[in-house]
Amino acid sequence: MATPPIGHRTKDFRKLFCGVRKKLQKIFRTQNEIFIIPSSATGAMEAAIRNCVDKKVLCLVNGAFGKRWADIARLCEKDVETVEVEWGKAIKPAIVERKLRHNKFEAICLVHVETSTGVMNPLNEIAAVVKKSGALFLVDAVSSLGAIRVEVDKLYIDVCFTASQKGLALPPGIAIISVSERALNKSRSVKSKGFYFNFELLLERAKNDEPLTTPSTSHIFALNKQLEKIEKEKMINREKRHYQLSKLCRSLGKSKGLEIFSEKGFEAPTLTCFKNTLNLNTNALLKFLDSRGFTISGGYGPLKGKTIRIGHMGDYKLKDIKLLFDAFDEFLKGL
Amino acid sequence: MATPPIGHRTKDFRKLFCGVRKKLQKIFRTQNEIFIIPSSATGAMEAAIRNCVDKKVLCLVNGAFGKRWADIARLCEKDVETVEVEWGKAIKPAIVERKLRHNKFEAICLVHVETSTGVMNPLNEIAAVVKKSGALFLVDAVSSLGAIRVEVDKLYIDVCFTASQKGLALPPGIAIISVSERALNKSRSVKSKGFYFNFELLLERAKNDEPLTTPSTSHIFALNKQLEKIEKEKMINREKRHYQLSKLCRSLGKSKGLEIFSEKGFEAPTLTCFKNTLNLNTNALLKFLDSRGFTISGGYGPLKGKTIRIGHMGDYKLKDIKLLFDAFDEFLKGL
Repeated sequence: MATPPIGHRTKDFRKLFCGVRKKLQKIFRTQNEIFIIPSSATGAMEAAIRNCVDKKVLCLVNGAFGKRWADIARLCEKDVETVEVEWGKAIKPAIVERKLRHNKFEAICLVHVETSTGVMNPLNEIAAVVKKSGALFLVDAVSSLGAIRVEVDKLYIDVCFTASQKGLALPPGIAIISVSERALNKSRSVKSKGFYFNFELLLERAKNDEPLTTPSTSHIFALNKQLEKIEKEKMINREKRHYQLSKLCRSLGKSKGLEIFSEKGFEAPTLTCFKNTLNLNTNALLKFLDSRGFTISGGYGPLKGKTIRIGHMGDYKLKDIKLLFDAFDEFLKGL
Repeated sequence: MATPPIGHRTKDFRKLFCGVRKKLQKIFRTQNEIFIIPSSATGAMEAAIRNCVDKKVLCLVNGAFGKRWADIARLCEKDVETVEVEWGKAIKPAIVERKLRHNKFEAICLVHVETSTGVMNPLNEIAAVVKKSGALFLVDAVSSLGAIRVEVDKLYIDVCFTASQKGLALPPGIAIISVSERALNKSRSVKSKGFYFNFELLLERAKNDEPLTTPSTSHIFALNKQLEKIEKEKMINREKRHYQLSKLCRSLGKSKGLEIFSEKGFEAPTLTCFKNTLNLNTNALLKFLDSRGFTISGGYGPLKGKTIRIGHMGDYKLKDIKLLFDAFDEFLKGL
């Protein structure tokens, strides 16, 4: 992040940008085009909607970020339908299949791992249902990609994106988006895409290894470094580490009397969401842990006070989780 | 940039964010709301168009970034008219006044300093004409704000924006936008604004000193530091320094046989654009200077090979310009 910026229309930058995008294709497990944009993941959601939906879109909602898909699509004046499932439960392929039996959509939007509830939706199974329907598949992989395997090509994911600060464990500031040929084709016929998130314009520049507009060069440098580190760790080990982290986190939480909020069998390997079964003052807990160097989260939106979320994605080690629960113990003893 | 990120929904971040926005209001010379978004300045342009124009917009074009205003507005499906002036010439208030005599627009878009031609458009005089017309005034102040004074409130600029990497001399990655009450009101009635650049949503969060979506915390830390430095230098001295830099740059260029490309009396204090009167191979020149540690630019778009642009905004000192021309001399001698 501290590397001084270089001109983004220079040969050196093009080389860096090309290398980063190639490394990202490996992480995304795709041959698709990769765009990197100064933006949060919300911008990537909007990009997916603006480029891939002319009228009718289906949003699968079981948490705050699924709801965001729908909010964005409505604010882009699209004709939005939703499949809604109780927060904390996973979206099952059957309910999607039922919806698709009598309805046709240009695109279907899913959040892979719902950061608000700690639920990992069954991506593979839903992907199969979406594929049969012929709709474009738009996937928010913010809290999964870079931490666990997301098979973009094998699952025919047309638009898949993440941000820098989750599985890739970098500071926030950029969104990374893979876009299929089908999505690019669709984009050509969709109007009112604007400029900033326009896949056609992004593609034109990407062919020449250039960003569309001024990039966050600091993030590109950092991303390059981090992708080298991930290559060294190997994705298979990185994924394994995340499953170990979540297993440990769940079991330590349970040993303190906390229950898991997320539906059994669908717990995310990247974050754990506990019910606040101990009726703790979550604000006080967060403040105490912060004073010990740990940042965790309370409930998101309507779950405020009702859940405790512990993120363990990126570069965390088992030891970090143990130390976190030591501090948690200290908090309990002080009550 | 290297400060480790903190949670953006924490009290510490809100305090930082509030302080930065207050310092920015001083630089923008405004009481208006300030939004900071992970985005390039192009995104800020799109934000201005999407929020402030329902149908009819006038774009004033005398270079690549004026043209971008028009491109963006067209891609957002707005009804766009332009006033076009030869690249290298300034837009005079009279031509705008003529256009407005028989046409009504919801908004009028101007680039203050055209980075592609080194021309500074007469902002004060155009502002007076726009004010009379009742249209919203949207100003790209990318290559001026933070280096020289831009009087947002005094000139009734409804949307004014810059990016981090120009007058503020930080790495690129964020856009900073001031938005007037009138622009916020207009925004409420405009449809298809989307989510990411939506002034209504940004405002709702800003009231609580929060960003709408995950911010680039690294840039916010850096911006805070840099704004403290600017307060110490004082804007009046910073502006003076930029006028000295441009004067020196022009005179050293002329002494080497280069003519100024930009119209006399409208030369930007932040960058100098020379005609390539010596018929130099600009690629070779740029490469040579780069090897000496200086990054300058050739002609932008249709001016490729025809102009040489030297940016001298941000934290540059007179000595830097002298050293640059020493290297330029070295290049000439080597021909």
